[in-house]
Amino acid sequence: MVRTQLTLVQIDNYGPWTVTPHPRPEVDLQTLQSRLYADLSQLIGRDGGYVFYTRFDNMIAVTNTLDMTAHERIQESVRNRYPVTVSLTTGVSDRPESALADATERLQAAGSAQDGTRTEVLGGETIDPDAAGVQIAHFDVNGATERYTDQLSAFTVYQQINRGYVTLAGHMHDAHGALTFFVGGDNVISVTPDLDRAAFEAAIEHVKEVADIDLKVGVGHGATATDAGMEAKEALEHCRETGDLVKLNADPATH
Amino acid sequence: MVRTQLTLVQIDNYGPWTVTPHPRPEVDLQTLQSRLYADLSQLIGRDGGYVFYTRFDNMIAVTNTLDMTAHERIQESVRNRYPVTVSLTTGVSDRPESALADATERLQAAGSAQDGTRTEVLGGETIDPDAAGVQIAHFDVNGATERYTDQLSAFTVYQQINRGYVTLAGHMHDAHGALTFFVGGDNVISVTPDLDRAAFEAAIEHVKEVADIDLKVGVGHGATATDAGMEAKEALEHCRETGDLVKLNADPATH
Amino acid sequence: MVRTQLTLVQIDNYGPWTVTPHPRPEVDLQTLQSRLYADLSQLIGRDGGYVFYTRFDNMIAVTNTLDMTAHERIQESVRNRYPVTVSLTTGVSDRPESALADATERLQAAGSAQDGTRTEVLGGETIDPDAAGVQIAHFDVNGATERYTDQLSAFTVYQQINRGYVTLAGHMHDAHGALTFFVGGDNVISVTPDLDRAAFEAAIEHVKEVADIDLKVGVGHGATATDAGMEAKEALEHCRETGDLVKLNADPATH
Amino acid sequence: MVRTQLTLVQIDNYGPWTVTPHPRPEVDLQTLQSRLYADLSQLIGRDGGYVFYTRFDNMIAVTNTLDMTAHERIQESVRNRYPVTVSLTTGVSDRPESALADATERLQAAGSAQDGTRTEVLGGETIDPDAAGVQIAHFDVNGATERYTDQLSAFTVYQQINRGYVTLAGHMHDAHGALTFFVGGDNVISVTPDLDRAAFEAAIEHVKEVADIDLKVGVGHGATATDAGMEAKEALEHCRETGDLVKLNADPATH
Repeated sequence: MVRTQLTLVQIDNYGPWTVTPHPRPEVDLQTLQSRLYADLSQLIGRDGGYVFYTRFDNMIAVTNTLDMTAHERIQESVRNRYPVTVSLTTGVSDRPESALADATERLQAAGSAQDGTRTEVLGGETIDPDAAGVQIAHFDVNGATERYTDQLSAFTVYQQINRGYVTLAGHMHDAHGALTFFVGGDNVISVTPDLDRAAFEAAIEHVKEVADIDLKVGVGHGATATDAGMEAKEALEHCRETGDLVKLNADPATH
Repeated sequence: MVRTQLTLVQIDNYGPWTVTPHPRPEVDLQTLQSRLYADLSQLIGRDGGYVFYTRFDNMIAVTNTLDMTAHERIQESVRNRYPVTVSLTTGVSDRPESALADATERLQAAGSAQDGTRTEVLGGETIDPDAAGVQIAHFDVNGATERYTDQLSAFTVYQQINRGYVTLAGHMHDAHGALTFFVGGDNVISVTPDLDRAAFEAAIEHVKEVADIDLKVGVGHGATATDAGMEAKEALEHCRETGDLVKLNADPATH
Repeated sequence: MVRTQLTLVQIDNYGPWTVTPHPRPEVDLQTLQSRLYADLSQLIGRDGGYVFYTRFDNMIAVTNTLDMTAHERIQESVRNRYPVTVSLTTGVSDRPESALADATERLQAAGSAQDGTRTEVLGGETIDPDAAGVQIAHFDVNGATERYTDQLSAFTVYQQINRGYVTLAGHMHDAHGALTFFVGGDNVISVTPDLDRAAFEAAIEHVKEVADIDLKVGVGHGATATDAGMEAKEALEHCRETGDLVKLNADPATH
Repeated sequence: MVRTQLTLVQIDNYGPWTVTPHPRPEVDLQTLQSRLYADLSQLIGRDGGYVFYTRFDNMIAVTNTLDMTAHERIQESVRNRYPVTVSLTTGVSDRPESALADATERLQAAGSAQDGTRTEVLGGETIDPDAAGVQIAHFDVNGATERYTDQLSAFTVYQQINRGYVTLAGHMHDAHGALTFFVGGDNVISVTPDLDRAAFEAAIEHVKEVADIDLKVGVGHGATATDAGMEAKEALEHCRETGDLVKLNADPATH
C-alpha cells in the first residue's frame, strides 16, 4: 500500500538572518544552503529518506521510516554544526500533497517562518513503516544530451528543461496529488500515490503536447524512498536499453 | 561599462558515470552535486565571482576577474577532491546571453557532454577586468512570507515562486539578453547588460501581469559579481525600508 | 561484557596517488583528508560508531553495531564521492589492541597499502551487538585553559598536550591493550577493555609522574561507542563539578 | 630573506560551548572541527597560506601574503557558516616560533580562550610580502609503508610515526625556533627560519639516534607557504628517486 510520510524542513527565521546586521555575502549563503542540503541528504538518507532542495530555506523530504526521535537527532545535528536551526514537521497520507499540506499547516500553526521566537518546531503524524510503502517515478528527457546540451546555449537548455519540469510537476500535482522535483541534469523525481501505467503514459503525453519535450519514466515501490527510488532508476535503465517510455517494476510484496 | 565574462562549468561525462556500472544511489549523487556547487562557490567566489547551480551537472558562473590560470587552478582543485572532472569554457560580451552562448559553443566544439574522452576542456575569451564591470539585479517577492510561506502548502509556494522566476527569466532573456537565476527563498539574481530603471519597472510589471506576483529589485554595479551583487543587496534593503519597487545604486565610476 | 569491534580504514594506494603525476597541492590533500574524516564520522556515527583520524590515510573506528553490509555501504559512499577508495577490515576482542591487530593483519594479508591493484578490501570478524558493549574513557587536562592556553605560546601548548597524550596512550596500551586517541583541545578518548577505578587512578598518576600533566577522566559503558562516550562525557562533567579525578558511570546492565 | 608571518586561529569560548547545556555528541564535534579545518585550509590556501590543525580549537597558519583585510574576510566567512566564531592574531619574525609567540601574546592580552565576551579578536603585525619569503621543509619516513604500515598493527604504526614526529618537532623547535607539524600518513612539515643543509642533516641524525626512525627531507623557499611547500615536495620527490636524504631547492631570488 502506498502511503507516504513527508517532512517539511524550514530554516528558522532565515530571511532576517541573511540581512542582519547587514546583507551577508551571497557566496556564504549559497555555501551554507547547499551544504545544509547535502548534510540533510546524508542524515535523512541514512534511514532511506530522500530530501529535495526546492527553495533551500524550505526543503521537502520523504521520511517513511524516520520516527520523531530520528527527526530530533537531525535537528540537534544541524544545531551543532550550523549558525541556523531548523524546524521539522511531518504529515502522512495516501496522497503526498495532502501529507505535505498537513506538515505545512502544523508548522504554520506554530508561528511564522520569520518569527524569531519560533525555533526548532518538531512534530506531526508518523507512519507505521511496516504497513506502508512509497512509490517513486524517475523521469528523464529523451536525447537530452544530443538534442539540448550539445546543441543549445547552456541557459536555453536550462530553461527548456525547467519548462518541461514545470509542466510535468503541475500535471502530476493537479491530476494525482503527486509532488515532483527537479534533481539535476535532465532528471525529475515524482513522489506519487499508487498510480498505474496509464497515468504515467498520460503524463508523458501531456508534457509532449504542452511543452514539446519527450520524457520516459521508470517507476519503483519500496518501504523507503531509497528502495523505491533505486527500483525506479533500474526501471529507467530498462527504458534506456529497450526504448520503452514507461516501465513499472511492480513489486507484488507492496501491492 | 558593463561587459560580462561568463564561464560554463560542465561535469565531464557525468550522465554515464551516474549509472556505471549500476545506478548510483540518489543520496550520493545529490551530496556530490551540492558539495561540488558549494566548493565552486567558494573557489570562484574568492576572486569575486558568482556561480549558479542551474542543472548542477552544468553550472553558470560570472567570472569577470578570473583569468585562465585561475580557471585552471579550479579545475585542478576539483580533480584532486572529486571522483569527477569539470570542463570550463568562457565567453565575453555586453550581453550576458551572448557571452554564455560563446562559452557553450566552444565546449560543444570540443566534443559531447557524454564523450568519455573529452575531459577538462579549458579555454575561451577573457576580459580585461579593469576595463569592464558587471550589473547585477537582485529581485525578491513582496510579502513572500506573509502571503505565501505562512499561508500555502510548501509545494504550492515553491511552484508559485518558480512560476514567477520562469516568467521573469524569460522576459529578461528575451528583452535584454540577461541571465536570471533562482538562488533560494524568494530571491532571484539577474546578470544583466547595462539596463536603466525603466527596464526594471517594465520587468516587474510584466511579472505582475503574467504571473500575478509582486516583485521588487535592487540593482548594483561593480568590477566583480560580488561587488555588484552586494550593492544590489543593499539597494534591495533600501526598497524594503522605503517601499520602493526599484532602486539602482548608480555608481558613476562604472557608468 | 566489554568486547570491542574495531575497523581499520585505509585509503587505497594513497601515497602514490598524492604524487601522481606530480605532487598535488598540500591544501587539496588536507581538504580531502579532513573531509573524508568528517564524512566517515557521520557515516559510522549514524550507527553509534566513533572514528579517530590518527594518520588520516589510516583511521581507526569503533564499530560494534555495524555489520559487514553497513561497512560495504560506507565503502560505496566514499567511492561515489571521492577520487580515492577505502579498504575496511574488522577485528573483535576483549582487548581493543588485539581487535585492531586482527583487522590490520587481515588487510596486510590482502596486499600492500601501496599496491595499486589491491582496492576496496572488505572483511573480518563482526560482533553480536546484543552480547557485547564498549568501555570509553574520556580524559581531559585539569586547568588546561588557565595553565596552558592562556599562558604559553600556542605551539608549546600543543607540544605539552601531545606529550601528555603520548605518555597516557603508551601506558594504556602497554598495561591494558587500550587504544587512546587525541580528539582536539585537551581531550583524549581511550577505548579500553573492562577496567576498574584503580586502573584509571594509576594511569592518571603515571602521566603526572612522567609528564607532569594533571588529568581527570570520566568512564562510560554502552552498546555503542556513542552511548559509552556520552556516558563518559557526563561522568567527566561530574568530575568538573566535584573536583573528582575519576568517575565511572557503572552501568550494571553491561557489567 | 626568510621572514614568516604566523596566524593563531582560536575558536572563541569553544570548551564551554561543547558542553552547554549538555555535552554535545562527539561525532558532531569531530565533524565541526574537521570541516572548519578544511574550510580554513581553502580560505587561507587561496592566498598561498598553510594551516595546521594541531589541537583543532587552536590552529596555526602561515599567512605571509594575507593582510588584515583578508583575515577579516575569513573571520566573517566562518561566522556566516558555523555555530562558532574565531579569533585571528598574527606575528612576524625571522624565527617562526617568535612570530607565533607574538600572535599568542596578543590574543592572550585580549582575554581568555574561555571568556564568553571575548569574541572575534583580530590584529597583529603583518609583513610586506614582497620583502620576505618562507622556508618549508617536508619530511617523510623512509620505507614507511614497507617497514611499518604493511608490517605492524595500525595503532603501533601511528604511535611510531608520532614518536618520530615528537622527536623531530622538539629538536627543530629547540635548536632553530622552527614549528613542525604532522600532516598525515608519514609526512611532517616544518616551517623554519633560514636553515642550511647541515641543519637538516643534523635533524635527521638526531631523530635516527633518539627514535630510531629514518627520515628524508625536501626543502623549498617561496613568497608563500604554497610556493615554498610545492618546491619542498618536488625536492622530496628528488630524494625518493635518488636516495638522497636531504635536498634543498635553493632559490637564489629569495636568498
